[in-house]
This record gives sequence, C-alpha cells and structure tokens, in this order.
Amino acid sequence: MAYYIGIDLGGSHFSVGIVDAQWRIIGEAAAPSAPERGAAAVAADMAAHILRALDAAGLSLSDCCAVGIGSPGTCDSATGVVLQAHNLGWYRVPLCALLQAELGVPAFLANDGDCAALGEVCAGAAQGSENALLVALGTGVGGGVILGGKICSGHRALGGELGHICIQMGGAECTCGARGCWEAYASAAALVRQAEVAAAEEPASALCAVGTLDGRKIFDAARAGDRTAVAVLARWYQYIGVGLVNLTNVLFPEVILLGGGVSAQGETLLAPVRAYVASHIFVRDCAQPPRIECAALANRAGVIGSAAFAAGCL
Amino acid sequence: MAYYIGIDLGGSHFSVGIVDAQWRIIGEAAAPSAPERGAAAVAADMAAHILRALDAAGLSLSDCCAVGIGSPGTCDSATGVVLQAHNLGWYRVPLCALLQAELGVPAFLANDGDCAALGEVCAGAAQGSENALLVALGTGVGGGVILGGKICSGHRALGGELGHICIQMGGAECTCGARGCWEAYASAAALVRQAEVAAAEEPASALCAVGTLDGRKIFDAARAGDRTAVAVLARWYQYIGVGLVNLTNVLFPEVILLGGGVSAQGETLLAPVRAYVASHIFVRDCAQPPRIECAALANRAGVIGSAAFAAGCL
Repeated sequence: MAYYIGIDLGGSHFSVGIVDAQWRIIGEAAAPSAPERGAAAVAADMAAHILRALDAAGLSLSDCCAVGIGSPGTCDSATGVVLQAHNLGWYRVPLCALLQAELGVPAFLANDGDCAALGEVCAGAAQGSENALLVALGTGVGGGVILGGKICSGHRALGGELGHICIQMGGAECTCGARGCWEAYASAAALVRQAEVAAAEEPASALCAVGTLDGRKIFDAARAGDRTAVAVLARWYQYIGVGLVNLTNVLFPEVILLGGGVSAQGETLLAPVRAYVASHIFVRDCAQPPRIECAALANRAGVIGSAAFAAGCL
Repeated sequence: MAYYIGIDLGGSHFSVGIVDAQWRIIGEAAAPSAPERGAAAVAADMAAHILRALDAAGLSLSDCCAVGIGSPGTCDSATGVVLQAHNLGWYRVPLCALLQAELGVPAFLANDGDCAALGEVCAGAAQGSENALLVALGTGVGGGVILGGKICSGHRALGGELGHICIQMGGAECTCGARGCWEAYASAAALVRQAEVAAAEEPASALCAVGTLDGRKIFDAARAGDRTAVAVLARWYQYIGVGLVNLTNVLFPEVILLGGGVSAQGETLLAPVRAYVASHIFVRDCAQPPRIECAALANRAGVIGSAAFAAGCL
C-alpha cells in the first residue's frame, strides 16, 4: 500500500505526518523549525522526524512514494526552491533537493496556504468540491485556490498571494511594502489595529478595559453589547467580504473556507460575511453565491495537503 | 478532417467562422444581432449564416464536429444557458438548445471574453502559453483567464468577471451597481471620463479644443505634449496596473494581453503598464513579471476561441 509524507513548515515549528490513501494521518512528529540554523540542518531534522513518524506508524521509508512540503513564502514548485520566505529568512533555498538527498524519496514543494487548501478539499470542509478557496485570517491573509481538484497558483506557482490583492489604491501600508492590500484590512492583526484605533477614540468602550486586545476579546466585547466593538467588527466583515467578492468574481469557487483562529467564532463570523458576498458578487441576481464555511482541519490541513500535493505530482 | 464552427455574439453583430485544425478561419459570415427579436430568431439566423460560411469554405455541416458560441454576459457553460446579458437584454436564454435544434450539431457556450482569451492562446499573441490573461479595455473591462490551456472561469463558468474586482472600496460607481470596480477606473470609457474631468479643470488644455473626447484624441494630445493629457494617462496606466497586479498576485499568468481599441497605441500603452506591474507585484524581488503584450487577433479571437472551446468540450 502506498503512503505519502506531508510536512507543514511554519515559522516556529514544522509538523510531519504519514498519510494513507484515505488522507488519514497515521503517524506524526513535530519539532521547532529554527530556520536560522540553515536549510540543510532543517532538512536533516525533517528527515529524522519523518523516520520517527514512520516508526510510530509501524512503517518504513520504502512504504512511502513521495514527500510533500508546504512552506511559507513564494515557492517554485517546478524546481523545489523556496524563492523567498521572509518569516524563515530564507531566499532561494533548494529545499526539495536537500530533503531528497537526506531521504532518497522524491520531494515536492508548494506554498503552505495552497497545501492547506488542498488538504481541506481532500479531507476537510471542502471535501467533494473540485473548486474551493481557503482564506486564513491570521497575522496576514493567506490561503489557497483549488481548481479542478488541483492547486491553482499560476506559472511556476508564483501566484496564490490572495492577501495581496489591492482593495484600496493608495490605502493602508502592508507588510509587503505595497499599499491597500486586502491583508492590511482583513487579517486578524488588522482587526486588532482597527479596534485599537476605535478604542482610543471611545474611552467608554469596553475595549479600553480588557488589556492587550486580541481577536477573541473584540468578539466577546461585541457579544456583550459594546457598540465600538460591534462597529469595528461590522466594518471588518466588509473588508473580508470585498476580497472574497473579488476572488469570487474571477474564480467562482463552489465553496469558500475561512480559517485561522477567528474561525472559532463560527456563525458569528460567517453570517455577516455570507450576507456581504451574496449581495455584492457580480452574478448576485442570477446565481447562488459560493457556500461559505469554516475550515475543518486546522493544523492538520497543511500536513494532509502537502502529502496530497506530492501524490498529485507523481 | 474535422472542422469547428465559432460564433462571436456581440451587442450589435454576430460573426460566424468555420475553423480548421490549425485554428484558421476558412469561411465566415456576419449579420446584425438584433437580440430584441428574441433568441430563437437569432439562433435561426446564426444557423443560416453558418450554412453560408460553410458554403464559402466548400464544406457542409457534416464536416463539422461542434459549434461554440461566445456570448456577452454571464453564461452557464454546463447548461448552455445565457444567464444574464444586459447588453442583449437576455435573461436565462437556452441559446445552445436553440442552436442545436436548428443545426443538429452539438453546441457549447462560453463568455465572449473567455473565448477571445482562448483564441489568443490557440492562434494569437499568447500562442505557446498555457497560462494567459486577456484584458480588453473598451466600454468596460472584459477578457478572460486561461490556465493549463483551458478557460478558467470557475464553478458553472460564473467567474471570469475581471472588470468587477474592487480596487477602491466605496469608490466610483460602476455600471454593475457596485462601487470601486476596476472597470470604473481602467476602461477606455473611464479614461475618457477622467480626461473630461481634467479638461474641465484646465481650460488651457488641448483636450478642450478637440471636440468630443475619445481614447485616441487623449493619446494624441499627450504625444503633442499636453500636460493634462499626460497626467490623465499616467494615472490611467496605474489604474490598469493595479488590476493586473491583483490578477497576477493570484493567478500568475505567463503572459498578459491587452486588447480593445486602445491597444493600437502599442508600446506607448505597454511600457508604463509593464513598469507598474514589474514594480508592484508581490514577487517583484524574486521573479520576473508576466510578459505583457497587445492582443493580436482583434475580432477574430472570439470566433477562433469559441471554436476552440467547442473542440475542448467534446
């Protein structure tokens, strides 16, 4: 029987999983990424943890057809090179070649958001949909596009940067150096910044009395009736919505999944976003909008999706 | 030998072409669309003109495998129904069924911009590229996305509305009823509006002395050194650029083609748009931008592309 290895590489940790033909994780391991030690050392460490995960599953390397890696940043899937990953401090790193040299198993590389989207299509909330969009609202806005059951990130996988579509020319500065990016308005981090600004203008708001703000405190304050929090969230839902409308008008996925910590808010988040998308997409008068749900697999999406990506590359 | 029939349906005219395996048009005919007479009458007229075009090519219907129709508006390729085409006044029109009943040949339907993009990939300026984007700058901003050599317009072909990505939340009103759409800033019609506003503020501008403005007069005035025209165009290039950057950050085509009447301006238009895209895409520091050129096939793109779409559906 054929197994695939999936690796979800993050800024702080990497996770390794052995994935079976039903996209179940049957063995896993994790370790700090520590990317500053260099990619060769990280690849060696990944290989060691793959052996540990195989051991946990009662398997050996010869049971595995390929390994897939989901990495942050811009990844050239054709060459297996991480072109730029600012939060790893990696530039032009031939990660696939390094890992292949350690393991002797074919290795394939894709962006982590793209892998997570593929994971949700294979085994998560988008199962059964060939065309799906995952949008992860966190420090930034990440995610991926799946069309026809495959990652859709364009020539040499250089696209898929969903968070960097401009929704406001000349608008808020983004960490990428551009202005007006969706991520600068719709990320969870942007929500916190927007709430901080609003709270500074409304000393009576409950937002001023809860210490350092985070997404959950803002939702809690709104639920308790704080008008500032309610207004900040109402505006933030529109920011999320405008980007989803843009992506829908171009790509029209069957299903849109929202991920990231704030997706724990469930219907509180989904209902207003659904309403915005339904009333703003171009085909609003003649077709149903995409289904909008929360992502289901959380951290496992990346491991399953990178394994599935490797399976699709063979 | 197998031939395909392509139909480019427009608001004023439709064009019919018999297309061979090398994507050459070997027989053609055209007639006024007159959509107000109803879709059944238009389909009958299309069938008559197909027979005329076949006659011109020395062929008969039995030499043809299928017919493709590129229609304005939102088209459901799965059912062959024009869902909404405002400039035809058509809503939920089963155009494929009507034409199939006339001809007895399988008929397939797609959006006209998508067909034109496919035509440019098969036989025009994007030949040899599997991933291409056509952006037609006219009354609106149309075009299409080709990925992996196929039209990419999402679930039931409901996407592909490139002109309706929002680049300015709460911005200029669009004909679609939304605000801030790319088309409201980057179309040739928007250029004329922008020049009219600028001219009204600068009575000394040459733009005030040329009668009713159009795209060519604005380019001519800029070439003659009129500072108002130069400034209007500089801003318009940015509007074009921001939408191309958005589409590139998500889809990363190998080649972007600009179409519409203004593409006759060639390098005058291309050079500043290329510069904007190269300096604003997310991967600007680690990868080459897409190639940006003018479309090559003009009106023939739609006929060739709709024939190619039909060929791909069989």
